[in-house]
Amino acid sequence: MADLDVVQRGSVLIGDNGLIEAVGSFKELRSLKPDAEIQEVDGVLFPGFVDCHTHAVFGAARLADHERRARGISYKEIAAAGGGILASVNDVRGRDESQLLELMKPRLAALVANGTTTVEVKSGYGLELAAELAQLEAVRRASLVGLPSLVPTFLGAHEVPPEARADPDGYVSTVVDEMLPAVQQQGVARFCDVFCEPGVFTIEQSRRVLEAAQRHGLGLKLHADEIDYSGGAQLAAELGAVSADHLAAVSESGIEVLSGSSTIAVLLPGTMLFLGSSSQAPARRMVDAGVAVALATDFNPGSSPGLSLPLMATLGVSQMRLLPAETIIAITVNGAAAVGEAHARGQIAPGFRADLVLASARDWRELPYWYGTNLISEVWIEGAACHPRQWPVNCLG
Amino acid sequence: MADLDVVQRGSVLIGDNGLIEAVGSFKELRSLKPDAEIQEVDGVLFPGFVDCHTHAVFGAARLADHERRARGISYKEIAAAGGGILASVNDVRGRDESQLLELMKPRLAALVANGTTTVEVKSGYGLELAAELAQLEAVRRASLVGLPSLVPTFLGAHEVPPEARADPDGYVSTVVDEMLPAVQQQGVARFCDVFCEPGVFTIEQSRRVLEAAQRHGLGLKLHADEIDYSGGAQLAAELGAVSADHLAAVSESGIEVLSGSSTIAVLLPGTMLFLGSSSQAPARRMVDAGVAVALATDFNPGSSPGLSLPLMATLGVSQMRLLPAETIIAITVNGAAAVGEAHARGQIAPGFRADLVLASARDWRELPYWYGTNLISEVWIEGAACHPRQWPVNCLG
Repeated sequence: MADLDVVQRGSVLIGDNGLIEAVGSFKELRSLKPDAEIQEVDGVLFPGFVDCHTHAVFGAARLADHERRARGISYKEIAAAGGGILASVNDVRGRDESQLLELMKPRLAALVANGTTTVEVKSGYGLELAAELAQLEAVRRASLVGLPSLVPTFLGAHEVPPEARADPDGYVSTVVDEMLPAVQQQGVARFCDVFCEPGVFTIEQSRRVLEAAQRHGLGLKLHADEIDYSGGAQLAAELGAVSADHLAAVSESGIEVLSGSSTIAVLLPGTMLFLGSSSQAPARRMVDAGVAVALATDFNPGSSPGLSLPLMATLGVSQMRLLPAETIIAITVNGAAAVGEAHARGQIAPGFRADLVLASARDWRELPYWYGTNLISEVWIEGAACHPRQWPVNCLG
Repeated sequence: MADLDVVQRGSVLIGDNGLIEAVGSFKELRSLKPDAEIQEVDGVLFPGFVDCHTHAVFGAARLADHERRARGISYKEIAAAGGGILASVNDVRGRDESQLLELMKPRLAALVANGTTTVEVKSGYGLELAAELAQLEAVRRASLVGLPSLVPTFLGAHEVPPEARADPDGYVSTVVDEMLPAVQQQGVARFCDVFCEPGVFTIEQSRRVLEAAQRHGLGLKLHADEIDYSGGAQLAAELGAVSADHLAAVSESGIEVLSGSSTIAVLLPGTMLFLGSSSQAPARRMVDAGVAVALATDFNPGSSPGLSLPLMATLGVSQMRLLPAETIIAITVNGAAAVGEAHARGQIAPGFRADLVLASARDWRELPYWYGTNLISEVWIEGAACHPRQWPVNCLG
């Protein structure tokens, strides 16, 4: 994971199809295509960052939850008091897909401005068919607006909704029998995810949902071992999920199983930071064990209203003891793998999408180093230049 | 500290002298000055942020130290191996004040872009008279260039330089007898600071430097109880220092003494984050005990290449359990107090400097909430609008 190929004074040839045709010296590329239009840039060019775990389609910010936690009220207590995820659920249920789209736009723009060109977005604040579909429809429409490129994930099993509290298994049946077929039919999701966690969905319930999703042709992801251990990492690997996410409470055997699998461990250090945790997922141990690790923002209104993958790279180095090079791989190559795009995104290489970000730096290691400011000066998505610094700053709230 | 006065649909009248004349409704202010030029803004207007603890005048970034720490090498081991502060000392000694100025400019611009309008800047990478003066002269020249407003601090006692290792007391004598008089004569510093820490300067050595500085008319600051306890907080309070800084290892008696003093506790959560610490200074206990707390970036190339006070506010809430309102006071009112400017900066009030920042938000609580992105859309310094979003992104390294 620390094997980074750094090209000095390199050039990239981009085809009309938005893909990278060649990478090399200017001279080589010039001879390949003498009439190519030339843009000279100054800085470090990275593959566009892939944010492989977000809940970017939501309603209002949850400003009160931030203060509540500062006052010592726990995540579970906030949820029990009607805050937490369910506050966002009530909010989203009261909005239509156009409203959700309008709220999402400036947030997606802020992600791009910080260098993210691909964003996985989960539903999961609907928890009933219509509202889940509205979220996924908002994601589909946002994809049409342009930037960034979105990967939709159905997360109907994010939480048991209030009206089904007495019968969680009944709600799982609704997800499996009613929601998943509709999601498949509408073609609005590429992955299915479940919040597998003691007190939310059990291993057995998670397995039911994921196996059904697999039958419907969806790829699998899993919120696994986030707060307390339940063996989610093992389930994800067993079912061939593309990723197991969070993993702050993963076990040694979970790490071992992941290391022998093709499942990516998606770690979310910003969430731990924002929730006030003093620990992080055992990233160093995982990488040393041979697990492929990606870092993502977990962008969501409750536990991580964070928008910067470079900041996640800083946390990777400073809080998780990953090497700087490992954090770059974690937000590019491995982020792409965690959304099933290892073959097409996350690398500056022939045949890959021309998703590129330019950082105002002389050394790639500056990206995780100058933390809390934005070094990104230019972004290309499928070869088309966006100019995020020229966009108006839109209110995110 | 949580007593924030929020004005809805407020207006600010700025005089030609760069000071705020009045704050109130548009109608009131209009009648005060019917011919005033009007600028309408959309968002939340904050007092310009005051970064009251930085080491912003330095040479190269210390990228290797970041990776070294990820590899498990401790702060003291890095220093012993010739990295750490001494790497920056060797670097700064090889540069003249013009080079230091040019390196500082984009870094100061990045601070302004993140909403900081006043920056305290320490010397301390010279550790010999000429190099210390070159740093302070670079700060003086940067003040003439314009933004932000700089407050210079002499930190000749930042570390014992290599050539004086055998005789630390002799180096303290050099600071007291040679450097301080020259600094006073040149009029290039407003405060004097000492790194009081076991293994660096003792309480007795720190007292010698600070008492001499006081005789030379400088205000006092102190790096106190950062890594290990030595009673620095008590010394700072006893000598009437304007601030005691870091305080991660402060004692209960230190907190008690600070609470009965006018010394501001300047806490630097970004440093703890960047160094990979799992703990933070006991901010909550201090505020509860009646200590006035400020938050700063500690911007420096080794332990905190961080540029965003809003991110420090996030860490204040999420990692230190300060209330959102307390973190706003900590980067404005109390930051100003920690540079002796409580009467003139850090508030939007008549007679105060018209240093203002506009955040693209509807609710002031969004500032510490949307972490890792920059909400600041406009900055005024002494009433003059800067447009940081239109500046070119300059390389910081």
